[in-house]
Amino acid sequence: MKKIQVGLIGFGTVGSGLAQTLYEQKERLQRKVGTEIVLTQVADIMTDSLPEQFAGVKLTKDAGDIFSNPDIDIVVELIGGMEPARTFMLEAIKNGKHVVTANKALLSVHGKEIFEAAVANNVEVGFEASVGGGIPVIKSLKEGLVANRIESIMGIMNGTANYILTRMTDEGVPFDEVLKDAQEQGFAEADPTYDVEGIDTAHKLAILMTIAYGKHVHLDDINTEGISNITPVDIEFAKEFGCRIKLLAISRNHDTHVEARVHPTMVPNSHMLANINGAYNAIHFTGDTVGNVLLYGLGAGMMPTGSAVAADVVDIGRNILCNSINRVPALSYLPQHIGKPTITPMSELSGPYYFRITALDKPGVLSTISGIFSKYNISIKSVIQKSRHELDPVAIVIHSHVANEDSVQKCIAEIDALDVCTENTVKIRILTDNK
Amino acid sequence: MKKIQVGLIGFGTVGSGLAQTLYEQKERLQRKVGTEIVLTQVADIMTDSLPEQFAGVKLTKDAGDIFSNPDIDIVVELIGGMEPARTFMLEAIKNGKHVVTANKALLSVHGKEIFEAAVANNVEVGFEASVGGGIPVIKSLKEGLVANRIESIMGIMNGTANYILTRMTDEGVPFDEVLKDAQEQGFAEADPTYDVEGIDTAHKLAILMTIAYGKHVHLDDINTEGISNITPVDIEFAKEFGCRIKLLAISRNHDTHVEARVHPTMVPNSHMLANINGAYNAIHFTGDTVGNVLLYGLGAGMMPTGSAVAADVVDIGRNILCNSINRVPALSYLPQHIGKPTITPMSELSGPYYFRITALDKPGVLSTISGIFSKYNISIKSVIQKSRHELDPVAIVIHSHVANEDSVQKCIAEIDALDVCTENTVKIRILTDNK
Repeated sequence: MKKIQVGLIGFGTVGSGLAQTLYEQKERLQRKVGTEIVLTQVADIMTDSLPEQFAGVKLTKDAGDIFSNPDIDIVVELIGGMEPARTFMLEAIKNGKHVVTANKALLSVHGKEIFEAAVANNVEVGFEASVGGGIPVIKSLKEGLVANRIESIMGIMNGTANYILTRMTDEGVPFDEVLKDAQEQGFAEADPTYDVEGIDTAHKLAILMTIAYGKHVHLDDINTEGISNITPVDIEFAKEFGCRIKLLAISRNHDTHVEARVHPTMVPNSHMLANINGAYNAIHFTGDTVGNVLLYGLGAGMMPTGSAVAADVVDIGRNILCNSINRVPALSYLPQHIGKPTITPMSELSGPYYFRITALDKPGVLSTISGIFSKYNISIKSVIQKSRHELDPVAIVIHSHVANEDSVQKCIAEIDALDVCTENTVKIRILTDNK
Repeated sequence: MKKIQVGLIGFGTVGSGLAQTLYEQKERLQRKVGTEIVLTQVADIMTDSLPEQFAGVKLTKDAGDIFSNPDIDIVVELIGGMEPARTFMLEAIKNGKHVVTANKALLSVHGKEIFEAAVANNVEVGFEASVGGGIPVIKSLKEGLVANRIESIMGIMNGTANYILTRMTDEGVPFDEVLKDAQEQGFAEADPTYDVEGIDTAHKLAILMTIAYGKHVHLDDINTEGISNITPVDIEFAKEFGCRIKLLAISRNHDTHVEARVHPTMVPNSHMLANINGAYNAIHFTGDTVGNVLLYGLGAGMMPTGSAVAADVVDIGRNILCNSINRVPALSYLPQHIGKPTITPMSELSGPYYFRITALDKPGVLSTISGIFSKYNISIKSVIQKSRHELDPVAIVIHSHVANEDSVQKCIAEIDALDVCTENTVKIRILTDNK
């Protein structure tokens, strides 16, 4: 039987993880697939030699050598970032190679171009590793939940942000301190912007929404807020309300329009997502047939990501052997049925909110503030005022009933303009249900 | 393009759920698969007419009509139980039909015969719905985690048992009372034996082990204990140790032999499985490449099960359209690589244990008991003695370090033979790690 031959671009952490996975699982895969899956060639500008166990693997510094290698069936792109990854993917596709990638940044921005090129060239695009690391989330959504209208997607999709929030919650330590420690321990990048500002999570949500709804969702469609402003004080108040603060990706399907947002969220302890701790990821789908499903595991790392990339390689390899290319459409729906999304404007969202207002402890302040809430039709569920000394700024913590985002923004602007308010008001959205 | 035509045997709860799913998701599936998936014929001895929306569907009381219907590509068996389900499956296979089933009891006993018949007739067997209801657990294990040696399987796989334990834990109510209430509310069967005695869970574990390890595991291979002896007292003591009691399926892979057991287990609150409540199921895999993965959702019910059966129908339908039958081997490994398992004898297991000894509160009792523990080399981690009145029986609760099962059995036998012991000792195994 024909061997399946893989060309790998990028021999960094994830690339080495794939190479190691294919090496260690070689016999197991053969007993499942019936043929060898072989790493044939590696392209990496930084690598001058490969570890001993890859003695038979060709090494080049020019990715073009892989595209022009007629033996190679599947090109795996694991260099990350926009360029040259985009050009490499398109070149590989143009050369009739199937492609596999873990590059969520690329797909959430240039996905449409790449998927359309793949259709035009009748090749496959595997991207299981782009969301949730080793968790089989893309396959589950495309195949396991095929007979479902996806009503919502919610998830903790960035291990670094979740690690930081978990330690802030468990140890009461401020953001900057945990981040610095995480960087020293190698759990956070030197530039943590993508992770802590929610951008990486938004990349992943864009990919999941595209598959779930059959609409090309772009990174720019997603309203994104990070966790760098979250303080131990808010985490403590969250506990008083029976919640934990998590960086969630949230999308709800309203058919004519879809929500698309990433922001810190107070999650009730009774909800599965409140109990996802440390570097773990979890993605929660609600389908009209299946109800709630949650998939949990390590969202990053050399070997978990290697597991997902290898699964894609096997999947495509089987289609090569069976002559069944694009047996399952790359984006779940057939290309001719994929449209453009209409994103719900943030101003139209509604839900309960947590507010922390910092004001001087003068008579009448609470009355003024609650008057402004009332003016914007925001109904107050509870108020906690933490004050000790007159004239010191106090924290007024308000938990609202369901309110409209636009009204909330206007309400906060008016409150923050008060002379008695000494800091900008913090607002955190509260998750209400399983959707 | 060719339509995919389905024949359904059994129009009970799950059968109606499949019919409704195919009806409601018809257009969505067409936009994904590119052709119609049609329910062509239903066989049910109890049904004289189908609901209005299934006007075009043929109805028969004779399953044989389905096997001999040349239009039908896929036969779905949803009658449950051993016979006539087994005969129907084999007849369908002999007639060249692909088969889909949710029948875990059948597969865990007659799986070998059915899968071998399918291979001989070059047809597919879909059984996603047999484990974890709507959770895509079989597909994830076979495909998403293909590049993994599965090191362990652990799971809460019976919603009824988990519902009962959750209510016992949250409300402090005894087993019998919760069971009765669950039966009245329709959450438990009139004969709940399979659910509460762990047999249904054992069916499912046998199926998962077969796929995970590439060995034909039979129901009889699995050591099974149920939850009917669990008391609120043990649940309260579990809480004192920071644990919840769950009915777990546990299998660990030691390569030359594999553990296979179902029993009540004290699960530390920090473990994901401790937080799976109510009728939900969760299956936890540890793979050597991916690490820990957990899949969560509704393990039963008309529509969740319909979702899983429909996913199998689509999967097989795609293989029919692409002419790629058995693209993925039914049992993950190719038939020639599936062997016989060697099951670890229960007597060789080891782990920490919880013991609740009921004894008269006489001087020297604790000394006698701890002497017996010492004799069997069982090291005590903590002892709680709850006593108030002299001569009343007291509860002596012991949490041991890692101990051998065989020694534990002998130790208990010796303790229970003491004159001062007024009731049989309760032992519950404690989960120690993520594996």
